[in-house]
Amino acid sequence: MLARWGDLARGIGDDAAELDVPPGERLVVSTDSSVEGSHFRRDWLTPEEIGWRATASALSDLAAMAARPLGLVLALCLPDDWRGALDGLADGVGAAARAAGAPIVGGDLVRGSELALTVTVLGSAASPLGRGGARAGDLVCVTGALGGPRCALAAWVRGERPAVSHRARFARPMPRLDEARWLAVHGASAMVDVSDGLAADLGHVAAASGVRIVLDPSRVPRVDGATLADALGGGEEYELALTLPGRATDPGVLDAFMARFALSLTIVGRVLAVDGGRAAHAGASGVVLDAGADAGERVDLPSGHDHFSS
Amino acid sequence: MLARWGDLARGIGDDAAELDVPPGERLVVSTDSSVEGSHFRRDWLTPEEIGWRATASALSDLAAMAARPLGLVLALCLPDDWRGALDGLADGVGAAARAAGAPIVGGDLVRGSELALTVTVLGSAASPLGRGGARAGDLVCVTGALGGPRCALAAWVRGERPAVSHRARFARPMPRLDEARWLAVHGASAMVDVSDGLAADLGHVAAASGVRIVLDPSRVPRVDGATLADALGGGEEYELALTLPGRATDPGVLDAFMARFALSLTIVGRVLAVDGGRAAHAGASGVVLDAGADAGERVDLPSGHDHFSS
Repeated sequence: MLARWGDLARGIGDDAAELDVPPGERLVVSTDSSVEGSHFRRDWLTPEEIGWRATASALSDLAAMAARPLGLVLALCLPDDWRGALDGLADGVGAAARAAGAPIVGGDLVRGSELALTVTVLGSAASPLGRGGARAGDLVCVTGALGGPRCALAAWVRGERPAVSHRARFARPMPRLDEARWLAVHGASAMVDVSDGLAADLGHVAAASGVRIVLDPSRVPRVDGATLADALGGGEEYELALTLPGRATDPGVLDAFMARFALSLTIVGRVLAVDGGRAAHAGASGVVLDAGADAGERVDLPSGHDHFSS
Repeated sequence: MLARWGDLARGIGDDAAELDVPPGERLVVSTDSSVEGSHFRRDWLTPEEIGWRATASALSDLAAMAARPLGLVLALCLPDDWRGALDGLADGVGAAARAAGAPIVGGDLVRGSELALTVTVLGSAASPLGRGGARAGDLVCVTGALGGPRCALAAWVRGERPAVSHRARFARPMPRLDEARWLAVHGASAMVDVSDGLAADLGHVAAASGVRIVLDPSRVPRVDGATLADALGGGEEYELALTLPGRATDPGVLDAFMARFALSLTIVGRVLAVDGGRAAHAGASGVVLDAGADAGERVDLPSGHDHFSS
């Protein structure tokens, strides 16, 4: 693997790797496992795609915090019958790490009965952006278009070949690292990556921020062929969902984002204060689907993506 | 798991955890997987011991660098038939983390067919101690007594019950974190934790430092019942092997270490310069077993511990 990674692999050889966190910045760390059978099946993805996806999904947690990647470590559990795929896995991990500017600074290779890649990402930010900063009056935005991964999964489970565009969204997600830092600089108050499903992830923001979020289903951007349930309930999108104070959503900011990144940024809802009657109405998740400004008819939300039930 | 960890778990809830590296110190990071079937068998250890051992072995990599733990993240791959053991696993991870003063700052829980714990440890040190600093004239030392884990493994593989003392060395290793930092302050020039076997790990030091290491087999401290092969070739000891300039091994330093930590520190060999003839004689590993000062009769070393062959 070291041979395939070249100068992307740094400092491997000692018992542990050394990294420098820029002065004045905090360390940000997250770990993410991708396991055959739970997260993907062997006949769905190439080894390169498995490596890319495992790495990109871990890096997406740094994006959610608006952190800059410093490096990553990979623990690879490799069954004997996957040994021939080692180069491909390494290439996929390497490509995603290189695209993010994250050197691979350590790893552990063990034998097991089931392919598992655990990627721990290290990043830094002067002020990491959490989930707890949404305030009443903020607008809720999402990058990109949703539903592709769930459509791809559904096709595979039916024994069909997914649409190329859906498959790509599942197989080669892009962690929105640069986009997240740009949005933090331009005023984002809370951010999350869409890994459990938009509705569930916004529920995390609502809970952490102590607010209600009202989502307009008609505004949620979907890839071609995706239903609303695909777009709201599908996990592993690795797009960003965020809140922006109203002033930050002047057309200039949205337009500047889209021009800079060639990626859509769509207003999908708004943040309201919790008040007694309405909080109860919003249900446990704190997220309400509501097509109008004042209506408030409750729609049962699809539950979040759960590896143990899917 | 959060309930069992109490205030040991910190900052879990955002997409990633935040930590501060002390100003002037470098971040040190390592990842380590423990997989059922490769690293242990279910009937050998309790869930608490499995959790402790996975965590302690990862922390030992910080000890090897003389780094202070800042925190750790756990990726747990849990088969359905291990769900009942989750509390025990969490308790074991928690106990080892607490003993090391390392908060648990993040995790990932996924379902799989095979129990696997991947622990990524984060630490810091102003000057992390690597493997490359051994110099001709240094003495080679090891903490504790070796051979216990290999004796325990051999007993289990024979279908026998290991001696209690051997079993404890396998099931509940102690990462030598405080000891390592003390040794770094007192002049250690290179250090490694004994995870592959003393001979193999000193081979890593010899290679990284560009030196030869001559080991006196009669000096290698063994637990009761262990053979020389057990002590030189057995892995997963998690003791420290290190080099110390001769002046640092004045009796005062060795005695002070033993008084401070109630743990033996034994001189087991010496570091020699590589010279043409002798380097060839030392073999590829750079480590020679030699009972005399000048003799140099080559002894075939047991190869290092290898999960794929053991």
